[in-house]
Amino acid sequence: MEEEKKETPNQAAAEEEEDQIVNPWEVAAKDGGKIDYDKLIDKFGCQRLDQTLIGRVHRLTGRPPHVFLRRGVFFAHRDFNEILDAYEKGKKFYLYTGRGPSSEALHLGHLVPFMFTKYLQDVFRVPLVIQLTDDEKCMWKNLTVEESQRLARENAKDIIACGFDITRTFIFSDFDYVGGAFYKNMVKVAKCVTLNKVQGIFGFSGEDHIGKISFPPVQAVPSFPSSFPHLFSGKDDLRCLIPCAIDQDPYFRMTRDVAPRIGYHKPSLIESTFFPALQGETGKMSASDPNSAIYVTDSAKVIKSKINKYAFSGGQDSVEKHRQLGANLEVDISIKYLNFFLEDDTELEHIKTEYAAGRMLTGEVKGRLGVVLSEIVERHRAARASVTDEVVDAFMAARPLPNMFD
Amino acid sequence: MEEEKKETPNQAAAEEEEDQIVNPWEVAAKDGGKIDYDKLIDKFGCQRLDQTLIGRVHRLTGRPPHVFLRRGVFFAHRDFNEILDAYEKGKKFYLYTGRGPSSEALHLGHLVPFMFTKYLQDVFRVPLVIQLTDDEKCMWKNLTVEESQRLARENAKDIIACGFDITRTFIFSDFDYVGGAFYKNMVKVAKCVTLNKVQGIFGFSGEDHIGKISFPPVQAVPSFPSSFPHLFSGKDDLRCLIPCAIDQDPYFRMTRDVAPRIGYHKPSLIESTFFPALQGETGKMSASDPNSAIYVTDSAKVIKSKINKYAFSGGQDSVEKHRQLGANLEVDISIKYLNFFLEDDTELEHIKTEYAAGRMLTGEVKGRLGVVLSEIVERHRAARASVTDEVVDAFMAARPLPNMFD
Repeated sequence: MEEEKKETPNQAAAEEEEDQIVNPWEVAAKDGGKIDYDKLIDKFGCQRLDQTLIGRVHRLTGRPPHVFLRRGVFFAHRDFNEILDAYEKGKKFYLYTGRGPSSEALHLGHLVPFMFTKYLQDVFRVPLVIQLTDDEKCMWKNLTVEESQRLARENAKDIIACGFDITRTFIFSDFDYVGGAFYKNMVKVAKCVTLNKVQGIFGFSGEDHIGKISFPPVQAVPSFPSSFPHLFSGKDDLRCLIPCAIDQDPYFRMTRDVAPRIGYHKPSLIESTFFPALQGETGKMSASDPNSAIYVTDSAKVIKSKINKYAFSGGQDSVEKHRQLGANLEVDISIKYLNFFLEDDTELEHIKTEYAAGRMLTGEVKGRLGVVLSEIVERHRAARASVTDEVVDAFMAARPLPNMFD
Repeated sequence: MEEEKKETPNQAAAEEEEDQIVNPWEVAAKDGGKIDYDKLIDKFGCQRLDQTLIGRVHRLTGRPPHVFLRRGVFFAHRDFNEILDAYEKGKKFYLYTGRGPSSEALHLGHLVPFMFTKYLQDVFRVPLVIQLTDDEKCMWKNLTVEESQRLARENAKDIIACGFDITRTFIFSDFDYVGGAFYKNMVKVAKCVTLNKVQGIFGFSGEDHIGKISFPPVQAVPSFPSSFPHLFSGKDDLRCLIPCAIDQDPYFRMTRDVAPRIGYHKPSLIESTFFPALQGETGKMSASDPNSAIYVTDSAKVIKSKINKYAFSGGQDSVEKHRQLGANLEVDISIKYLNFFLEDDTELEHIKTEYAAGRMLTGEVKGRLGVVLSEIVERHRAARASVTDEVVDAFMAARPLPNMFD
């Protein structure tokens, strides 16, 4: 088991002087450059997800690893090996992921953890809890309770449209579900975390409201099976695996620190890079700029236009120069996006080779990307249209999940 | 309406250098002297409960004011006049009080707010909510969740034994009841209170755990009718009156500050002095010293013995001197206790006159006190014996209260 990094009250302040900032509310690379994920792994104290581990997933599930695993989108972890050790011995686990419902429409980056979580649910055949932190967004974004709850339900439809199995999936909003065993675990966690500690981890200041300081236990406790008595009664020993983007790591560093002190397993994590903005790989996309991302509500025409206008190109200034020098794939956003969403490894390799050599032009690559993304978005839109309010209610009902471990 | 006192982050620190400390966790007079209640009213910014107001209660209810009103036990208030203004116009209100369940047995001081609340419920014929802060005690006293819940139920039996009307009374424990509309109000309150603010009001430091910092909204929100949808649905305009000891004032100063910002009435308060320890009037009783208080579980023999051994006497050292100088009533604990619990005004005046003149000896006053307290404790014990687990369940069921406002 890795060494957990210790926080100090001044770490958050120190962080601002550092080269990059990654926390649940801010992701910024140094001087508009790229996020240095190696440095992040080192700083957070998590582990790189290596080929041995990916090979193990392949062998244990009997299914080819997801494209997000093969291509390093999910690139870091904490104790994922322990989940696999237990699984190998016939012990199942459960998945926990979530979303802060702050916007009406999701963009492709929002879908990444859910697409990957669906894959994990399918290949490991395990139950899943999805937390919608409407309380968090109400507090951070200054939304009303009602508006946060409405957005949570809207977002639930997009999440369900990713294809989760209703017999293994429980979706809940904090405003609906906080209470009972869940609240008891919140209190148990809160007792173990000092103000200094959360200020060190999250950088809260005296000017922040106490809602922010109260929130980390809310995101922590779905890591413990006893928070869900209707699902896991008598299964306190069940392990939890959390797929998420690496900016959520601070919450679970805190959770892992507390878990053994209150008699629970530390949750394991499998963590992704950020999905880049169309304009370039300098961090996460900006919710305030709709042209920085492809939304699941965008039409094929809008998608094509956004890619053509905004997707940062690694190609050369003129066709002549491009034919001569080729494209710089390291900064080309179309290639980055195809790396996420073009499933065919052979075709992707072909495009990268031809584009790097200057035989393929930016326009051609963008054209292919437009088709790939339009298909995904169209498939998502069709799936979402079939998610009625009744379906949402069914996923969000606090109920036993009959096929949980079969 | 009074001016609310503004808190500064350093107020708590400054307070320690002041003459007396009064907050929900510590009550200490200056240099072992008496609490200066006039100073407290001035510092907290509440108002003295004067004869005009007591006369108004008499007139509006058609019943003689409770002994705790007549004798200055409940001595301070915030906007109690507004409650009476509205009541005079035919608008009812609801009562809210509570207890932190940290001990098995209650002492007489614990009963004071409940005896007074029962009087208020009877004469105004209004509904009442009683909060058992088992979450608070779990966090502050480091009790387990289970032990806090057990103590909450035990304490509920003592509270019910005070004679509350089951058709108008809802008792709840936080571990049971936090969630839903209650949790939504907690989030609304937490959004309005900065860390600096709670540090100023309650003196929390960086070494304190975040459970403490998260708790004030839990005690705040029963002040708002929308926290109880099964009771007050559609009655958001209903006013709340909180009878409590004055050490709880900081919670409600915070609550009153927040209330108008989230669209609610400020709760009104009616606040009591502290019940003195047998050893002398220097603060509240110490839970760690069973000989500092009379418990509702003490036998008549134990009560008599505790009074004789420990009740601080204002009498003189020798009978001769006593006959000559008389007793100092200001420091005599038996007189203080009789002031709380001997209902007959004429008899009390007689005892005070005779004792002050030296015609009555300490032993005689203590003897009378022993009889008065034994009767109260015996009556309480008999009442408590009739409170079964089913009765507790009935009081604690989240249900409508049919006779709420008749």
